[in-house]
Amino acid sequence: MTTQAAAVLDAPPLGTTMRALVKGSAAPGAQIREVPVPQPGPGEILVKVLAASVCGTDVHIERWDPWAQENFGPPPMIFGHEMAGIVVARGPGATRIPLGELIAAETHWVDWTCYQCRTGRAHICQNNRTLGVKVPGAFAQYVVMPEVNAWVSDRLTPEIAALQEPLGNAVHAAFVEEVAGQTALVTGCGPIGLMSIGVLKIAGARSVFATDINPERLAMATQMGANLALDARDDVVARLKAETDGNGVDIVLEMSGSAAALHQGLAAVTNGGRVSLMGTHAVPATLDLSQEVIFKGIRIYGITGRRLWDTWYRTTALLEEGLDISPVITHRLPLGDYAKAFDLVASGHAGKIVLLPQEEA
Amino acid sequence: MTTQAAAVLDAPPLGTTMRALVKGSAAPGAQIREVPVPQPGPGEILVKVLAASVCGTDVHIERWDPWAQENFGPPPMIFGHEMAGIVVARGPGATRIPLGELIAAETHWVDWTCYQCRTGRAHICQNNRTLGVKVPGAFAQYVVMPEVNAWVSDRLTPEIAALQEPLGNAVHAAFVEEVAGQTALVTGCGPIGLMSIGVLKIAGARSVFATDINPERLAMATQMGANLALDARDDVVARLKAETDGNGVDIVLEMSGSAAALHQGLAAVTNGGRVSLMGTHAVPATLDLSQEVIFKGIRIYGITGRRLWDTWYRTTALLEEGLDISPVITHRLPLGDYAKAFDLVASGHAGKIVLLPQEEA
Amino acid sequence: MTTQAAAVLDAPPLGTTMRALVKGSAAPGAQIREVPVPQPGPGEILVKVLAASVCGTDVHIERWDPWAQENFGPPPMIFGHEMAGIVVARGPGATRIPLGELIAAETHWVDWTCYQCRTGRAHICQNNRTLGVKVPGAFAQYVVMPEVNAWVSDRLTPEIAALQEPLGNAVHAAFVEEVAGQTALVTGCGPIGLMSIGVLKIAGARSVFATDINPERLAMATQMGANLALDARDDVVARLKAETDGNGVDIVLEMSGSAAALHQGLAAVTNGGRVSLMGTHAVPATLDLSQEVIFKGIRIYGITGRRLWDTWYRTTALLEEGLDISPVITHRLPLGDYAKAFDLVASGHAGKIVLLPQEEA
Amino acid sequence: MTTQAAAVLDAPPLGTTMRALVKGSAAPGAQIREVPVPQPGPGEILVKVLAASVCGTDVHIERWDPWAQENFGPPPMIFGHEMAGIVVARGPGATRIPLGELIAAETHWVDWTCYQCRTGRAHICQNNRTLGVKVPGAFAQYVVMPEVNAWVSDRLTPEIAALQEPLGNAVHAAFVEEVAGQTALVTGCGPIGLMSIGVLKIAGARSVFATDINPERLAMATQMGANLALDARDDVVARLKAETDGNGVDIVLEMSGSAAALHQGLAAVTNGGRVSLMGTHAVPATLDLSQEVIFKGIRIYGITGRRLWDTWYRTTALLEEGLDISPVITHRLPLGDYAKAFDLVASGHAGKIVLLPQEEA
Repeated sequence: MTTQAAAVLDAPPLGTTMRALVKGSAAPGAQIREVPVPQPGPGEILVKVLAASVCGTDVHIERWDPWAQENFGPPPMIFGHEMAGIVVARGPGATRIPLGELIAAETHWVDWTCYQCRTGRAHICQNNRTLGVKVPGAFAQYVVMPEVNAWVSDRLTPEIAALQEPLGNAVHAAFVEEVAGQTALVTGCGPIGLMSIGVLKIAGARSVFATDINPERLAMATQMGANLALDARDDVVARLKAETDGNGVDIVLEMSGSAAALHQGLAAVTNGGRVSLMGTHAVPATLDLSQEVIFKGIRIYGITGRRLWDTWYRTTALLEEGLDISPVITHRLPLGDYAKAFDLVASGHAGKIVLLPQEEA
Repeated sequence: MTTQAAAVLDAPPLGTTMRALVKGSAAPGAQIREVPVPQPGPGEILVKVLAASVCGTDVHIERWDPWAQENFGPPPMIFGHEMAGIVVARGPGATRIPLGELIAAETHWVDWTCYQCRTGRAHICQNNRTLGVKVPGAFAQYVVMPEVNAWVSDRLTPEIAALQEPLGNAVHAAFVEEVAGQTALVTGCGPIGLMSIGVLKIAGARSVFATDINPERLAMATQMGANLALDARDDVVARLKAETDGNGVDIVLEMSGSAAALHQGLAAVTNGGRVSLMGTHAVPATLDLSQEVIFKGIRIYGITGRRLWDTWYRTTALLEEGLDISPVITHRLPLGDYAKAFDLVASGHAGKIVLLPQEEA
Repeated sequence: MTTQAAAVLDAPPLGTTMRALVKGSAAPGAQIREVPVPQPGPGEILVKVLAASVCGTDVHIERWDPWAQENFGPPPMIFGHEMAGIVVARGPGATRIPLGELIAAETHWVDWTCYQCRTGRAHICQNNRTLGVKVPGAFAQYVVMPEVNAWVSDRLTPEIAALQEPLGNAVHAAFVEEVAGQTALVTGCGPIGLMSIGVLKIAGARSVFATDINPERLAMATQMGANLALDARDDVVARLKAETDGNGVDIVLEMSGSAAALHQGLAAVTNGGRVSLMGTHAVPATLDLSQEVIFKGIRIYGITGRRLWDTWYRTTALLEEGLDISPVITHRLPLGDYAKAFDLVASGHAGKIVLLPQEEA
Repeated sequence: MTTQAAAVLDAPPLGTTMRALVKGSAAPGAQIREVPVPQPGPGEILVKVLAASVCGTDVHIERWDPWAQENFGPPPMIFGHEMAGIVVARGPGATRIPLGELIAAETHWVDWTCYQCRTGRAHICQNNRTLGVKVPGAFAQYVVMPEVNAWVSDRLTPEIAALQEPLGNAVHAAFVEEVAGQTALVTGCGPIGLMSIGVLKIAGARSVFATDINPERLAMATQMGANLALDARDDVVARLKAETDGNGVDIVLEMSGSAAALHQGLAAVTNGGRVSLMGTHAVPATLDLSQEVIFKGIRIYGITGRRLWDTWYRTTALLEEGLDISPVITHRLPLGDYAKAFDLVASGHAGKIVLLPQEEA
C-alpha cells in the first residue's frame, strides 16, 4: 500500500505529456507517440497505468484486419484495454474511489439506460463502446475512464488485476450454469482457455479436458490443472466418451473460434449438456443443427464481456481464494516493445503478455 | 365417460386382426393391411386407438426420404405416433391406469437407466426408441405400449388428447424460460408453430409475432392469436424492431427448420434474448456465430420431445385452462384416407390432420 | 398527450407554494399545509403529481404506530409514495426524460454502489431510503425525485401508472418462478393480493384460489378472476387438496401478514412448491419448520420492493396486454379528504384509494 | 474387485439366519437378534451389508422419542439406513446391477407415480417410506431393497459409500444454488454440517465459516477446511460482517435444528442471500418474518433427502475428485457395540460412527 499511496504524488501537472501507443492511420502498424495526458471530466478518473496486457483484439487493430477496419476508432487513437493502475486524479462527481487505489477496468463503456442495461444485462448494452476500440485506450502511461468502470483491486498485483478482464470472460463462460462435480471440455488453450481451466478446477469440476493443436499450449493446459490435454487432431470425441462412462462431457467452453473445435465440442457434449461460445469466429460456421443441437437437447450460450458486476465479484473472489493464473503470463515487456509483443501473440508462442507503460523500453 | 367405459367391452378376443397402416418395404409408399392385434406384455397396455394425427415425420416415412431410410423400422412395420385411445387390456404388472381410461402416448420409449434418464432428462435418453419409428406405431386400430408411457387424458376429447404430443413440443420450446410480459416471434406456422402461438398467448406474452411464407398459415396464425402475422419475405426484422421500441423480441421459437427463418430470428432477438430451436433442419445451416450469437449474448436451446412429465402436466393444464388448439385441426379422415392426408400435409394446404382408425374409409 | 404536453406550462415559478399532506410531529395525525414547491437538484426532476394512492404504510405513518416511530422522517415531512405525474422541470444532468412525460415513481432511493446494487439486487439496497418514509413524499402537488427513479408510463392513465408500484410488488412476488399452468393460492385480498390474482390469471395460472375473512374482499377477488374465493376460517386446506387432485397448490402468495394465513398456505402448498412472503408481519410467527418447510422441501421467498427494472418492464407489459386492475380502485378523492381515505383503508371497507393532489377538496 | 467378486459366493442359502439390530417393542431400547435372511422379491436385490453408519434418527428410534413413536415401524423391526454392501442375490426382473457390485442405498422408497415423483422431485414423494423407519432396515448382515434404490459405488470403500447418504444431504443443501466464489456459513457441526464444509470448499466457496457450541466439533470443522470456526455463543454476526466487507454471507446452511442458530444465520446472511434449512427442529421456532426474511429479500430452501439422482451423481463425483470426508468418521464398531455407538452420538463426543455388521463384537 505504501507504493500505491505514494503514487498519488505522481498525478501529472496540467499540460504534461505521456508515452502512448497510437494507431496513427487506417493502415497496418502502430506508433509510440508523446501525447497530452488526458483530463478526467465529470464522473471520470485519471489512472496511471501500471500494467496493460495484450489481447488478440489488439493484434487485429495493429494488423488492421477487416474487423478492425470496421470497428476501430477512427484513427489516430490510442488502443489497448486490459489494464490496471492507480487512481491519480478525479473529475467532478467522481468520489467513490479514493486516490491511490489500484483499480482494473471494466472495458465496456455502457449507456446504463438501454433495455439491456436496465435489466441486468449491461454487458450486452445496445450502445456499448469498448475501451481502446471506440474510445482512447490504455496502452499509455495514463488513461481516463468513467469512475463507474473502475474495479477496486487493492489485494492484487497490477498484472493480475489487469488480467481480471479476460479472466472475467472465462468466469462468465464457465458459470452460466453450475460447475461442481461436472465434467468439462475446454476447446482452445489461448490465454482465456487456459484461465478457464483454472476456473473450472477451483470450482470443483470433476474432470477438465482441454484441446488445442499447439503443443506449447497443451503443456500450459496441463500446468493450469487440466486432467487431460489432447491434440485436437486426434480422436478427441472417442477419448472423452471413454473418460466419461460413455456419456460425454457436461460442459463445453469453446475458446478457439474454430469451427472444427466447435464440432468436436458438440459431438463430445452429453445430451442435455451446455456449451459456452466465447472464441470469436472470423468466418461463418456450418452446423448440422438437427444432429448437433436439436436432437441432443443442448443449450448454447453466446458469451461476451463480463456481467456487471456479478462476474467481477466472482473473479476477484476466485483469485483471493487461490486461483493462480500467473502461469498464463509468459512475457512482461516495456510498452516500447509492443511490436515484439504483437508478433509473439500472432505466432502462438506466447501465453499472456503484459506491457508495462511506466518502464522504458 | 359412458362411451369410454363402454369401450372396455371392445377388448378384442385373442387372435383377432385389425386394420393398420404399414410401411411394407424399404421404398416409397404404405399400405393398409389386416394384421394381428398385438398383445400387451409385462408392464404394457393395449390401447384402442380413437385418434391418430399426422406428423411431418410420418410423411418422411411414407415418402422414404434419407432420414426415414436411416431411422425407420426396419419395414415391414406399422407407423404413426401422435395418438389417443382407450385402455382395453393390461399386461402383467400394468396396474396404474384403469381399463376404459382415455390416454395419450408419450412417444419416446426411454430406457429409464441412462445418465439422462436418471437426471431429469429422459426426453433425450441415450437409447430412446420412438413409437412408429423404431417400434410398431399407432396408425392402427390397436397399439401396445408401456403403461409408463400412457398419459391419462380423461378430461379431453380423443383428438385433442392425441395432439398433446406435438403441443407438448410447443410447450417445451416455449417454457425453457419464462414467457409472461415478454415479446415473442414464432418462425414457421406449421401445426407446432401455430400451437405455440396459442401457448404464448395464454401464458401472458406481451406480443406474439409470427412468420411464414404460406398465406393460409399466416391466416391461421392470426386465428390462433398472433398480434401480427408477417410474410417472411418482407423486412421482418425492421418491422419487429419498430414494434418493440427498437429492442427486438425477447423470445424466438424457431419452428420451420429453415436457415433463412433462423437468421431472421437471430437478427430479431434482443441482446441477451433466447431462441428455441425446434424445427428440424434437413440441411446444415451456416451461421455467423460471432455476430448472430456471441456478441448478442443470447441463449439457444435445442428442443426435442417433451420433459417427462413436467411438460405433460403443463400441457394438460393449459388445455384445461382454455387453450384452444382446435383451429389447428383442418381435417379429420378415416385411416384409409391416409394417402390424401399425406398429400395434404406435403402440399402445405393443411394444418393438423387427424386420422380415425375406428372409422371405415 | 395533449393534456400532458400542456402540463409543461404548469411548471411553477420559483418561490411558488403548494398544498401537501405533512406529518407535522411525532404523534398521531397529519395536516394539509402550504409549503414551498421543492427544486430539483443535480440529476433530479420536479414532478406535478396527478395521482397518489394510499398504501397501508401511509396509515401506519398517520396513526404513528411503533413501526412509523422507528422508521419515519423525522417529522415534519410530507409522506405518500405511490404516485404518478408529469415531469415539469429538470435539474442539471437530468436529460433522459422529456418534459411533459407521465412518469411513475420507483419509490426506493437506492445507493447504486453497495454489493446488492452492483449485483442486480438494488431493491434490497443496504442503504435504501424510501419516498415518503425517509425522504419527502408525494402526497403533494409537486415532488422532487432522482430522474433515475422515474418510470415513463406514457401509455397509462395517471391512476393506473401510480398503482404500478404496489402492482409491481405483486408481479415480483408472482414471478420469482414460473406461473403458467400452475395452481396458486393468494392469502389475503387487500389491494396487492387482489392485483396478484389478476397477474396470475393473465400469466396462465391453471387455477387461482384466494382467501380472506372479509366478504367484500372475497367478492373483489372473484371480480379479479379468482377461480375460488374462500373464507379463511373454513377448512381451506381440505378444499384446496380436493381441487388439486390431492396434491395441493404449486404456488402460495402470502399477502396478509397473518401467521394463520401463512400456516394455511404452508399446509396447502404441494411438496416442493414455492411460497412468496410479501405481507408484512407485525408480530413474530411461530413455525414448525420441520413439518411445514423442511420435510416438504419447499422454497420460501422474502419479497420486498420491485426488481430494478425487470419488474417494471413486466408490470407495464402486463398492463399493456390487458391486465385490468381498475376493479381494485374503489375510491378517488381530493388530497384534502385524506382523513376519510385513511379511515376507509383502516376499516377494510376499501380497495385502493387514489388521492388527487391537483383537485380541491 | 477381487474381494467383491468373491463376495458373490457369500449369498446365503435359503433358510439361513443373520444377526440384526431390532427395535423389539414400542419402548426404549433395541436388541441384537438372530432373524431369517430376507429374500428379494420382484425388482429387488439382496445386499450383504459391509458398513452401516449411525444417524441421529437411529438414536431417536432407539430412545423411542415422540418422533419415533409417531413414525417408526411398527415394532418389531430392524432399523438403520445409511449403508453400503455387496449385491449377493437378485429377485425376478432385477437385472441392472451385477452380482458382486458394491452399492449404497438411496434410503427413500418412493412410489414413482405421484405428482412429485413424476416432476423430478421424487425426494419429496407423497408416499415415501424410509429404509429402517417404515421398512426393515440395514443394521443387519443382509438387507433387501428395490434395485432402483441401489447406487453403484464400486470406486469407493464401503464406509465412504455408506456415508454418501448423509453426504448427499449436505450436497443437496449446498447446491440449491451456485457456490463458487461465495461466502458461506454452516451452523451446526454435526456430521452433515462437517461434511458440508468439505463440500463448500471443494466447490470453490470463497470463505466457509462454521459455528457450534461444542469445541470438539469446532476443531473438526477446522480440520474439514473451515476458514473460521466460531463458538455460537460469541458475537458471530459482528464477526462475519467484519469478515465480509460488511455485507454478510451469501450462503447459510442451517444444520443444527436450533432456533438460535437459525436467527444467527438469518442475521448474518446478506440481503438477497439464501438459506438452506436441513437440521430438524424438534420444537417450533419463532421468527420475525418481516425483519429476518421479507425485508432482506432472502430465499429459504427446505432440504430433505437427496435429488434422484442428480445429487448422487454429484456426490460421487466430488468424492472421486478428492473430497475427503474421512475425518468425520471417528469410530468404527462391530454391530454388537450398538449401545456404545448410540451413547456416543447422543453425548456429542463423536463424529460419524460406522457399524460393521459382518464383524463379531
